[in-house]
Amino acid sequence: MERHFAKELEKLNESLIEMGQTAQRMIQDAVRALVQREEGILEEVFALERKVNHMQIEIDEAALQLFATQQPVARDLRFLVTAMKLNSELERIGDQAVNIAESTAGLLKEPPLKPLIDIPLMAELAQKMVSDSLEAFVKRDVLMAKAVIMADDRVDDLKDQIFRELLTYMMADAKAIPRALTLILISRNLERIGDQATNIAEEVIYMVEGRDVRHPEKQ
Amino acid sequence: MERHFAKELEKLNESLIEMGQTAQRMIQDAVRALVQREEGILEEVFALERKVNHMQIEIDEAALQLFATQQPVARDLRFLVTAMKLNSELERIGDQAVNIAESTAGLLKEPPLKPLIDIPLMAELAQKMVSDSLEAFVKRDVLMAKAVIMADDRVDDLKDQIFRELLTYMMADAKAIPRALTLILISRNLERIGDQATNIAEEVIYMVEGRDVRHPEKQ
Repeated sequence: MERHFAKELEKLNESLIEMGQTAQRMIQDAVRALVQREEGILEEVFALERKVNHMQIEIDEAALQLFATQQPVARDLRFLVTAMKLNSELERIGDQAVNIAESTAGLLKEPPLKPLIDIPLMAELAQKMVSDSLEAFVKRDVLMAKAVIMADDRVDDLKDQIFRELLTYMMADAKAIPRALTLILISRNLERIGDQATNIAEEVIYMVEGRDVRHPEKQ
Repeated sequence: MERHFAKELEKLNESLIEMGQTAQRMIQDAVRALVQREEGILEEVFALERKVNHMQIEIDEAALQLFATQQPVARDLRFLVTAMKLNSELERIGDQAVNIAESTAGLLKEPPLKPLIDIPLMAELAQKMVSDSLEAFVKRDVLMAKAVIMADDRVDDLKDQIFRELLTYMMADAKAIPRALTLILISRNLERIGDQATNIAEEVIYMVEGRDVRHPEKQ
């Protein structure tokens, strides 16, 4: 029974990793479509969203099954609860990528406002946060989880920088406003992805240390 | 034991309802500070955020405790898992209210851009979605949960309407851009609250209609 349970947990780990990789791929594709102005790539994002949604249901069911049949306690219980929370976060990361893809579809109908430098950089950082937070989960690595939380500051700085830069475009030329606004919203989607990776990292620390880092003012 | 468990679940219900009411109050206060231009109200929002964060930790701990000591199955298991997910959603609804309060603090330093009609309306709808989704949870009421999901369309329509209106202000006067942008971001925070209430409603439907995980082959 014990060995069977360990194997099931391992399978759950693998599913979450695969779901995380799919969500990362969605971010990457959505931003690549935006930067390279290739609308065709967007189809891929929408197809992967269906995959992620399907995986979310399967992982939830698998975790519930383990709760019911194994009645885990202590460490295993926390692990399972965390897995279910990560599952929700990953699905929402996929949603953010879909938002970016939808905004991109609109932007590609108009001439480019400016070459995009900071948005792909922000996307790269956010993706790395997602993969690192999942690796921290699998390895129960608190230090790695803390590094993810710290990386979020850089994502937030980039968001502010993008905002200020696009503001100057808007003030200089009213015709630029709708496109600049859409780019600002895309940067907010990427910021949200960073927040979601931060949520995952905080859950990992909570799982390993049993200590709540989600609200540091309480410590 | 059974009766003790039922009582504990009842307590969990009550805590979630109280947390939901606190989060709603935060939305209400943040938007009231914005509309009435009363900075003093914002302090209340930040104080309530600390309360919500504290409640989140307590509810999570109480739920984990019940998992470990009662080893619930079937209906009770799903209820507990759903309660933990709702707990996260409610905390994030509070975060959105804090975002609105922070944006408001900036806006109140400048003259008003326009009388605000749609934003308070949107806030009212979003708040009602939150309270209805929680009532649907407590009553396991699928129809009510479905009504919440449908109400989200109206919130999204208002968001689009606010966006278009503020766009005209920005195009007409470059000096209006920063304030209009902030109002657009506030409307996005309210949209997110509607999304989070929708998430709660979806979880409720899944909880009520989901398969019994103990004997999936029987369903």
